[in-house]
Amino acid sequence: MPIAYLTRRERFASAHRLFQPGLSNDENLNLYGQCSHPNWHGHNYELFVTVRGEVNPQTGFVLNLKTLSNILKAKVVDKLDHRNLNVDVDFLEGLVPTTENLAIAIWACIEDDINAMGAKLHCIKVQESENNFIEYRGE
Amino acid sequence: MPIAYLTRRERFASAHRLFQPGLSNDENLNLYGQCSHPNWHGHNYELFVTVRGEVNPQTGFVLNLKTLSNILKAKVVDKLDHRNLNVDVDFLEGLVPTTENLAIAIWACIEDDINAMGAKLHCIKVQESENNFIEYRGE
Amino acid sequence: MPIAYLTRRERFASAHRLFQPGLSNDENLNLYGQCSHPNWHGHNYELFVTVRGEVNPQTGFVLNLKTLSNILKAKVVDKLDHRNLNVDVDFLEGLVPTTENLAIAIWACIEDDINAMGAKLHCIKVQESENNFIEYRGE
Amino acid sequence: MPIAYLTRRERFASAHRLFQPGLSNDENLNLYGQCSHPNWHGHNYELFVTVRGEVNPQTGFVLNLKTLSNILKAKVVDKLDHRNLNVDVDFLEGLVPTTENLAIAIWACIEDDINAMGAKLHCIKVQESENNFIEYRGE
Amino acid sequence: MPIAYLTRRERFASAHRLFQPGLSNDENLNLYGQCSHPNWHGHNYELFVTVRGEVNPQTGFVLNLKTLSNILKAKVVDKLDHRNLNVDVDFLEGLVPTTENLAIAIWACIEDDINAMGAKLHCIKVQESENNFIEYRGE
Amino acid sequence: MPIAYLTRRERFASAHRLFQPGLSNDENLNLYGQCSHPNWHGHNYELFVTVRGEVNPQTGFVLNLKTLSNILKAKVVDKLDHRNLNVDVDFLEGLVPTTENLAIAIWACIEDDINAMGAKLHCIKVQESENNFIEYRGE
Repeated sequence: MPIAYLTRRERFASAHRLFQPGLSNDENLNLYGQCSHPNWHGHNYELFVTVRGEVNPQTGFVLNLKTLSNILKAKVVDKLDHRNLNVDVDFLEGLVPTTENLAIAIWACIEDDINAMGAKLHCIKVQESENNFIEYRGE
Repeated sequence: MPIAYLTRRERFASAHRLFQPGLSNDENLNLYGQCSHPNWHGHNYELFVTVRGEVNPQTGFVLNLKTLSNILKAKVVDKLDHRNLNVDVDFLEGLVPTTENLAIAIWACIEDDINAMGAKLHCIKVQESENNFIEYRGE
Repeated sequence: MPIAYLTRRERFASAHRLFQPGLSNDENLNLYGQCSHPNWHGHNYELFVTVRGEVNPQTGFVLNLKTLSNILKAKVVDKLDHRNLNVDVDFLEGLVPTTENLAIAIWACIEDDINAMGAKLHCIKVQESENNFIEYRGE
Repeated sequence: MPIAYLTRRERFASAHRLFQPGLSNDENLNLYGQCSHPNWHGHNYELFVTVRGEVNPQTGFVLNLKTLSNILKAKVVDKLDHRNLNVDVDFLEGLVPTTENLAIAIWACIEDDINAMGAKLHCIKVQESENNFIEYRGE
Repeated sequence: MPIAYLTRRERFASAHRLFQPGLSNDENLNLYGQCSHPNWHGHNYELFVTVRGEVNPQTGFVLNLKTLSNILKAKVVDKLDHRNLNVDVDFLEGLVPTTENLAIAIWACIEDDINAMGAKLHCIKVQESENNFIEYRGE
Repeated sequence: MPIAYLTRRERFASAHRLFQPGLSNDENLNLYGQCSHPNWHGHNYELFVTVRGEVNPQTGFVLNLKTLSNILKAKVVDKLDHRNLNVDVDFLEGLVPTTENLAIAIWACIEDDINAMGAKLHCIKVQESENNFIEYRGE
């Protein structure tokens, strides 16, 4: 049976600040520049979740896109959208909310659910601005 | 000689309906939701064809883009554009026209032509909407 | 009080065919080209609704965007999305479903609701493809 | 001499919260929904500034784009980018930072500078997300 | 009969240099910066042509889009695409090829043809980059 | 430590002509079509540089994006932007400036700098138009 890669885009709008608690404000500003501005800033993030799986010969689907979108909403988007990534999100606790850490943490949130649907999580891409994005592939 | 990946985008606007002939209308609606609406719906599809090949040291090309585009038009786009994917397309006969099946069928349509040009077909990406796309890589 | 223009984008995926019932199939194909293909084709339409109104000095809103989106969904998008514009849509009955007629008909569907919210409908823009769109401004 | 409209796009990433100081947290949440989340959220804003003016027959310019961009950076973007719209921005003090109020306030920041360059400010468009934007034209 | 605005997008890729023949190279570089680089640079231009007209009650069209596109190709795009705006284009002779002058000159190229089709040319928009565009409306 | 892929987009606007010095003008036009127009044409190029590296557990970064952008500007963008790819660019000397050769040459310009930052260059993607792009991955 042929293998295909299915990608679903979701969006969320969040506040954040790049900040290591073990460093002073000045050290953080020195390291992260304006991304560490103490009063926060924010982004319209785009999330692209790619799963890899056999195409079911009956349905013609890798998996049901509606189900995938529901999982993404419940496990990821509803926890991030219109929230503060440093303060409000259980699965980001203790992490500097860089795009890298965000992508890695989102992978962990949904890997089991994708497996349970009979597919494999292949790539989490998080786009922070039109000029910058991160991909995490479970390595 | 260095290897590069060349991608060409083409577009087509088609009607379709997700529908298994072995199931009733109600079973199809239950499985596919509004994508199985009996009177059809449609999309502006985007097709991205990626080929992999050596860069010719004289021309600086993997292959001639104009030739590639002509093949894509003759073998794929002219058969899909302003057509009904369930009814009008010989190479989709007997298939539920999901984005997965569309990508796999397009691969089969052009693989030999790409080989004949001295390159290898690497990926067929079909984007059905701004939120969903499928990639097929011949696996 | 200052006046602002608020635009909301919605999307729908529909099948259609350009076809005048008073003409033969051949005459329609001659007039509309492949847009009159008998087995339908379809598009991912983008709808941009622009309303004009005073900015409320308390809320800072022209009107509540959530309410506007709910009206657009109930009166327009739910009737068009995953539907056939020639067959399924009450407010398009008797019209050739060109982008022009679509924009004019959508205006009529929502003008009263926008008025009732204390604003004025300013423009309906319907984008059929990345190369073509229509604007209707109530003239 | 012919008249043309010149538009320059700039971008900024900011945190904000829709919040009226005269209302309680619950009243604000009731009015603004998740846009009033107390710990802030944020956006990648896009700003489109349109000026109207005669095309100088020597230079072929309405005005010098570099100068316009410098004014926009100094008067607007540097004050908003990687900042909190409720807390950090002098020209938004006392305003609920809706997209409407943002567009109106940006107009006031730059109107005199555009006049001094011999053109007229025509439109401030602020895009908060791919689905929503506001235009203010000085009315 | 209702009035609608129809917009068609076309694209062309051209080389140019901002340069006044009456000024020295240094004076041009001083005025236009790197846009006056003597060995040329270039852009992927996007052209949006908007026409205003009555919607024909039979066809549902302002005018035939295919005819409009053919006019634009013959009168504008074929003369600009893969050409040098300073050297190769008859209708730009004697003009500094700024985006302003380009928009105004394109208007003159097609105004009569649009009139002859029973519509009115409403706006020529030329986008030189994702950050800059010009609109000309015949004023 | 997890591995992530960081992509940075940069842009440049350049003139070029596809031309082999060993061939006559006619032979070049025959081979490259209008892309060999003698008076040049040009593009708004988009460059996507992807690096692969461990996510630093302190900073949460693969590498500092500001530093990466500075390297890209100094080594690549400043040499290509508002320049002629056939005439002005040291690292393209002797090469037909196809998108393939451009991507391969950009790889060579920055590979050492990326290594020196403790990451690996993974992919250079150069987009010449909305329909065509090349990826080079060091093969």
